[in-house]
Parts: sequence; structure tokens; C-alpha cells
Amino acid sequence: MTVKQLSLPELTKACVRLGVPGVGLWREPVQAYGAEAAAALVRDAGLAVTTLCRGGFLTAVDPDRRAEALADNRAAIDEAVTLGTDTLVLVSGGLPAGSRDLPAARERIADALGELAPYAGERGIRLAIEPLHPMFASDRCVVSTLDQALELAERFPAEQVGVVVDTYHIWWDDRAPAAVARAAERIFSFQLADWTTPLPAGVLNGRGQLGDGAVDLRAWRERVDKAGYTGPIEVELFNDDLWERDGVELLTEVAERYVEHAL
Amino acid sequence: MTVKQLSLPELTKACVRLGVPGVGLWREPVQAYGAEAAAALVRDAGLAVTTLCRGGFLTAVDPDRRAEALADNRAAIDEAVTLGTDTLVLVSGGLPAGSRDLPAARERIADALGELAPYAGERGIRLAIEPLHPMFASDRCVVSTLDQALELAERFPAEQVGVVVDTYHIWWDDRAPAAVARAAERIFSFQLADWTTPLPAGVLNGRGQLGDGAVDLRAWRERVDKAGYTGPIEVELFNDDLWERDGVELLTEVAERYVEHAL
Repeated sequence: MTVKQLSLPELTKACVRLGVPGVGLWREPVQAYGAEAAAALVRDAGLAVTTLCRGGFLTAVDPDRRAEALADNRAAIDEAVTLGTDTLVLVSGGLPAGSRDLPAARERIADALGELAPYAGERGIRLAIEPLHPMFASDRCVVSTLDQALELAERFPAEQVGVVVDTYHIWWDDRAPAAVARAAERIFSFQLADWTTPLPAGVLNGRGQLGDGAVDLRAWRERVDKAGYTGPIEVELFNDDLWERDGVELLTEVAERYVEHAL
Repeated sequence: MTVKQLSLPELTKACVRLGVPGVGLWREPVQAYGAEAAAALVRDAGLAVTTLCRGGFLTAVDPDRRAEALADNRAAIDEAVTLGTDTLVLVSGGLPAGSRDLPAARERIADALGELAPYAGERGIRLAIEPLHPMFASDRCVVSTLDQALELAERFPAEQVGVVVDTYHIWWDDRAPAAVARAAERIFSFQLADWTTPLPAGVLNGRGQLGDGAVDLRAWRERVDKAGYTGPIEVELFNDDLWERDGVELLTEVAERYVEHAL
């Protein structure tokens, strides 16, 4: 998604040229290209699919909407299998229209995980709960801190449900370093983005290029290392300004910034 | 600030007519009107000045800037005395340019409070640390949770340094209800605003009218009650759309919404 201006073939070619060994994919471009074809493309390029983004949106109260969400998540798990990744990232979902009850919404996520985790486990897929910045709590994700994500994950076996550590969402939280240490083997994904201001309207597409903002990226990478994480490190930037640039040039810059600020 | 389209005389007249017994003032309009004159205006109308907003911005590293900030806060304390309020609200300040060290910035706030709290205490003014939503952590306030604000306040006597509970900033935080209970007599101010989306660019002026958003305002009012708070309840909305409306009409609506959603 960092370079969504690139097609999947352009993306895989650029990754290979830059020595980037894996790529996290999003469902929409994968579905548009075809999951089997995308899997073959990435595999033939010698790249790993690090994660699939995203399942989730599990907070519906209405039984039909809830059933739809569960079916969609099972489909996402199947797509993850096809792509050859072991990790599906979950963005939990916001408050249903008219609701003001965050704790109840979080419990509905736990209920849904109870149905999805065994389905995923049987297929070798891990579910990674991503806490999103509190500015998304009402409309996108009622799980706002790494502690909250862990409290959900820890109700399930460590090999089935874990968390995403994304610097953009947790960098401000003085409790997050301890949560990273506690997460340990439940860290299923580690994502980097910097925090830059002013935020754009809607706040979704304002993630900063590595090194441009307030986040001590290397300190977070070291914390995740110390917690025992040895998996891939993803850079996930949603940014309208970056998306207007040449995709290969941007990806090259991201790789340079990664080395400069996080490695 | 909720009705900043009104002059101070218009504001006091409208408050009296609506039966609103007090008003929180901001330094800029008070300075423009003259602190002595503003004090007389509000006093003659029979209104209380609930709080003065705001001091703070105490995170500078540069010694000259730090000295300037301390002098400005002493001036704010003096203005609070003139206005006849007992509470100065502090917005702590963001990261200095180029810094990525949140813990160090928070310690500089504690150092500055060590200088300001006795000065304020001698003048009968209480300092109220306001945690701001984490989306303001880099550029406005490195104190992002009620727990963090309390950890700062609790280093000082309970009659000198306390906290502001503002629903807009803490509504998403599952630890905040327990922090409200723990804050008890350190709750120096209670402010209401609702959380509405999408947020506008820059995110500062998107506070929602009471009842329009995701916050269970009455539940927070009841928590603050239960913690023993008996002080004034302020409604603080920064909202470009609301500011374009007729100020008296808006203030009337705010009073109605307060009764409907919080009382």
C-alpha cells in the first residue's frame, strides 16, 4: 500500500531490484489481479508475502452484518493460504452507528475471534490484531493500544492470535514499550511509519516517510528485537503526497530511509 | 472559546440569560479586553470565572525559551488572580523541533511545575494539567493520558497541582475510568466535548457538539461525580462549523444539549 501507484508486477520487480525480500499485500489489489496469479507472481520473483491486510471489522451488532463479516474473514484467511503467507492482519472495526459502548464492541471482537481463530489455525494462518491510533477509535478500530490488543489475543493460543506492532499507532504510548516486551512471541508483524503533522482531513492518509517525523524508529525496532521478534519488518505508509510520486523512486527512498533510520 | 464569535459582554449577557452560572475564559480575549475590565464585567454579571486557559508549553530545551515559558506562566497565574478564578489550565507542550524523546519532554514539564507550583500556590491558584488526545502528542501536548497527567500531578501537593478531565481527550481510553477515580480531589476541571468524525485537516477544530458523537457524556459525568468532584462543568468546543453560527443561538443549543446528554 506504501506504493499503491505500482501494479503488482511493477512492485515485485522493484522489490527484487532493491533487495527487498518480502512484501505485505492488501486484499483489494490481490483480488483485482487474482489471488492465484498474485501468488505465482510473487513466488516466481522469489519474494515472500509477509502479511495479508486485512480482515477484521468485527464489531457489528446486527446478526446479518456479523455473519457477513465472519464470512469475509474466512475468505481472507483462504486468500492468505493461497498467497502463501502465514499472517492475516485484523483491523477490528469501529463503533456501530449510534453506539457509544466501546467495551461491548471489544467483547464482540473477542467473540468473533473465538469463531475465526480455529478456522485460521487449521489452515496455518495466524490472526494479528492491530491496535490503531486512538484517533481511529470511533470509526475504524476500537482497539487503541497494544495492551488492549494483547488482552484480546491472550484469550487464545499464542500460535493462533497475536498482535501487530505499528510504530505509527503506538509511538505516543508510554505503556507500549512494556507491552512489546510482554507480547514476545505474540508479535506477528512489525510495521514502521513516522508521525508527521499537520494531519490531513480525515487523518487516514497522513503517515510520514521514515525519518520525517517524531518517532524514534530505531528504538522501537530495538524493543521488538529484544522481545524476540525475528520476522519481517514492513513499512506501511498511507500518504496522498507520497502516492503522487513515481512509485519506484518512492520505494527506493523508503528502502534508503529504512537503512538510515531503523536498521 | 466554544462561542468565540461572541464578545465578552455578549458572552456574559447570554450566560446570565440562560442561567449558566460560570464561564471558563481564554487568555487572548481576556488580554484584548483587559484583565481588570474582564474581571469586573464577569463579576458584575454575577458569574464565576471557572478556569483560565491556558498556561503550559513547558517542554523547551533551550534555556532562553524555557525562561520565557516560565515567565509567561507566571503572568498567566497573575491574570488568573485578577480574574478571580482559582484554576489555571496547562497544556504541556509538544516535542521541541528535532526531538523524538517523549519521556525527556515529560520530565521537563515536571521540572517546570516544580518552579511554578509554589508561585501559584502562594497566590491561591491551582495548576490543572490537561492530557490531550494522543493525536496531539508531537506538536501540542506530550501528556496524552489521564494516568500520565496524574503521574506528574502526584509529585506535588494535591491542593497545588491537579488534572483536567476532558471527555474529548480521554473517552477512548479504557484506563481512564480508573484514573478518574484515582484522581479524586485532584480533578480541578471537568470539560465536555463529543467526538465526531471525519476530523478536519489539522484536527484541532473538530470537536463535536454534545450528543453528536461517540462519547457517552453522562457516563463520564457520573464517573467524575463518583470521584467526588463538585466543581463546575465546562463545555469546550473548537469547531469551525459551530463558530460560523450565531453565537447566542449556539450557546443556547449547548445549554440544551448539556441538559439532554450530560446532566
